[in-house]
Parts: sequence; C-alpha cells; structure tokens
Amino acid sequence: MDVIKVAAKSRPFKVAGAVAGVFREHKQAVVQAIGAGAVNQAVKALILARQYLAQDGYHVAFIPQFTEIEIQGQVRTAVRFTVIAVPADLDPVPLEPLPASSAAQIQQNEEAERASSSQEGGES
Amino acid sequence: MDVIKVAAKSRPFKVAGAVAGVFREHKQAVVQAIGAGAVNQAVKALILARQYLAQDGYHVAFIPQFTEIEIQGQVRTAVRFTVIAVPADLDPVPLEPLPASSAAQIQQNEEAERASSSQEGGES
Repeated sequence: MDVIKVAAKSRPFKVAGAVAGVFREHKQAVVQAIGAGAVNQAVKALILARQYLAQDGYHVAFIPQFTEIEIQGQVRTAVRFTVIAVPADLDPVPLEPLPASSAAQIQQNEEAERASSSQEGGES
Repeated sequence: MDVIKVAAKSRPFKVAGAVAGVFREHKQAVVQAIGAGAVNQAVKALILARQYLAQDGYHVAFIPQFTEIEIQGQVRTAVRFTVIAVPADLDPVPLEPLPASSAAQIQQNEEAERASSSQEGGES
C-alpha cells in the first residue's frame, strides 16, 4: 500500500479521491505531509475522503503520528495520518454536507492553484 | 463539554494536556482550529494527546469536519477534530516514542513562542 504524499499545493478534492480509492482497496490508507501548509491540505482532504467513504457505508477516523523521513540527506519530521474504519456507533460526528462556502472556497483555491501551476509549466 | 480552541501560536504540549484532560472526563474531546498554522498546531497536539491517553490505556482516533463559525460578523470555515476512543484491535498505528528531534523541535518552538509572546506582553 503506497503512502499518499500531500504538499502545500496539493488539491484536497484530488487527494481525497486518492485516499478513498486506496481505502476501498486496502481498508486502510496512509497520508503523509510535511509542513503546516501540507498538513492543512491533508486535513481538508481527509474531511472530504470521510464524506466520500460514508457514501460506501464506511465510518472512518484518523490516527496521526510523527515520522522522520530523510529528504536529500536531511532528516525532516513528517505527519502521517492513518485512515481506519470504525463501527458506526463509535462515530459521534454527523455527516453534514460540506458548508457551501467551504466547498466553494476549496474549489476556488484548487482552480487558482491549477491556473498558477499550469503557468509554471505543470505540477512536479 | 467545551471546545478546545487552537491558534497558530498555541503550544502543542499545552493543548495536548487540555485534550487529554477533557477526554478523561468526557470520553470525548473537540478541538477547533482556523487557518493552516492553527490546524498544524492542532494536529501536533492530537499526536501528543494520543500518547498521553495511551498511558491511560485509551486508543484514540480523530474525526475531522468543517464547521462554519462567525467571528466579528464574518463567517469563517473552521476545522473541528472530535477525539474518540477506539478498540485497541482497530488501532494499527504502533505507539512509538516521539522522535527525539521532533520533541526537541516542538519544545524549542514553544519556548521561542513563549519568549516572543511575553515580549508582546503575554498571550491574549
């Protein structure tokens, strides 16, 4: 099972789709982020993934942990989120539709990012 | 049960203590953050709180959701994390001690924040 890596400019809807896909196959998924911007995008993606997976009847929760990884010879601390399924009766959080303004805002941000990254010549 | 509010300059160890305290009393806790810096601090605090609560025999996981709140007449989107206990056999993440460098880094940041906030005349 591959770790899903999230960057500050990752698009939450896209990451959420990846999380849901891995989860459906493995009944677990792992998301990794380094830095505040990336952690924030990862959390947004996890909120969306929770809603996607609820449509398949899963209640999911997340277990975060620190992990040290080496990037270009330097040790960095990453945050890793493991997505697990929990029994419905353990999930106290009602599945409300995404507030319209939040959905619009995320989508706007994604479009802005897409526009700016295509100006930069695409994503790395 | 009060919602624990986290800001970008909140200290993760302190927030983690609050989360563990509320959880021990209510078997649930809710943490709220607005903005990438605050969400990142909240996640760090949740990782630490998970370790504190493991010492009491709890395995905890987190359910994030968006929530809209009004601040000074403006609607803002906050992230809310609900802390729940899960059965040990549902928790696939080993409880490793915090990597020494992560602990040192968090502590250093907290000390730097404390120093700068006391120069500013204390926390608001």
